[in-house]
Amino acid sequence: MPALIFDLDGTLVDTVYAHVFSWQRALADHGMDIPGWRIHRRIGMSGGLFTRAVGRELGHDLSEAQAEELQGRHDRLFRELLPPAARRPLPGAKGLLAELRQKGVTHGIATSGRRPGIDPSLASLEVPDEMVVVQRGDVARAKPEPDLFIECARRLGADPEICFVVGDAVWDLLAARRAGMLSIGLLSGGYGADELYRAGAYLVYRDAAELRESLDELGL
Amino acid sequence: MPALIFDLDGTLVDTVYAHVFSWQRALADHGMDIPGWRIHRRIGMSGGLFTRAVGRELGHDLSEAQAEELQGRHDRLFRELLPPAARRPLPGAKGLLAELRQKGVTHGIATSGRRPGIDPSLASLEVPDEMVVVQRGDVARAKPEPDLFIECARRLGADPEICFVVGDAVWDLLAARRAGMLSIGLLSGGYGADELYRAGAYLVYRDAAELRESLDELGL
Repeated sequence: MPALIFDLDGTLVDTVYAHVFSWQRALADHGMDIPGWRIHRRIGMSGGLFTRAVGRELGHDLSEAQAEELQGRHDRLFRELLPPAARRPLPGAKGLLAELRQKGVTHGIATSGRRPGIDPSLASLEVPDEMVVVQRGDVARAKPEPDLFIECARRLGADPEICFVVGDAVWDLLAARRAGMLSIGLLSGGYGADELYRAGAYLVYRDAAELRESLDELGL
Repeated sequence: MPALIFDLDGTLVDTVYAHVFSWQRALADHGMDIPGWRIHRRIGMSGGLFTRAVGRELGHDLSEAQAEELQGRHDRLFRELLPPAARRPLPGAKGLLAELRQKGVTHGIATSGRRPGIDPSLASLEVPDEMVVVQRGDVARAKPEPDLFIECARRLGADPEICFVVGDAVWDLLAARRAGMLSIGLLSGGYGADELYRAGAYLVYRDAAELRESLDELGL
């Protein structure tokens, strides 16, 4: 029976647009103007990779300290824009996870986000404490490297070849391919369906609600 | 020689993500939780259409007064999130418009936005006061109805069949088809290329900068 590995932001919780906006403001505060859509298409990479890529694009070579300062500024703006109490699951996410628990389907979360930043997101999903959650701090390299998904599969006791990664960003799908896993794209992070199919998604659904109604299409 | 009719938000100025976020907050303040990506894919419709559509989706039938209140709340949040001084042209937009003026290419702007809200966007583009700008208040119906584009062509003295609409949203492309005009999609509003081609774009470019380098592909 397949196992499911979920991305968090844009897949289970509705945080992508707040991330885009707080990255854009953090960068602008440091004199770097980056169009919103370019930031949007990079959400889901690790913050460290993201800031360094942005710096290179603008011809600034960011030091480790500058990248950390930017990440800190983003984190503060993000909490201002979307306070923990306003964090919302995406439609169907809570119900999908509850159904997987109830049916005994092996599943976990693997996110480029970090604790404690991700804790309000997990709380909003009402998942049990014992759920397998692999976060940025648990592995050496974040998406699009496969480490988060490989580590999640290891903790779940599932072979990579029976895992489906569920994600909203091309970084999830790329990391899934590198991990030897199949993947499913969701539109709930704001990518178009073709972008997700082209990045390797086996199927694309609107959101967690549509995925829940379609579990039989995955042999679950 | 073809004439060009530009959308404003997401096409010439980098405002889409601030619009998404302020609509989402305005709706949440009124007890309506709508995922960010659903709002994103509706930016560019008139605000009135947008609020009524959202209300219908949630099973609230919004009155005219409620729709206006929501629009007002959005406008205030938008100015807070993106103050006039922080409004930014998208890469290449200012240079593209300057080149069209210098070459004597007929062109104008047709936007679902309203004055005075759009004034800081126009100021950031440094366009002359005499530029043809058709805004929401100038016509009876906004996008995806063709009125804004038809009125813009009329003021430019251009036949619809020689006009190219340049826009970032499927609503621009749909309204262009209804107006009997060709259209060009830009990725700078955060749609995927295939979404824009499928909605009828003749060509899709990354942003105004790439369009500027490709004017010869349009016979300009």
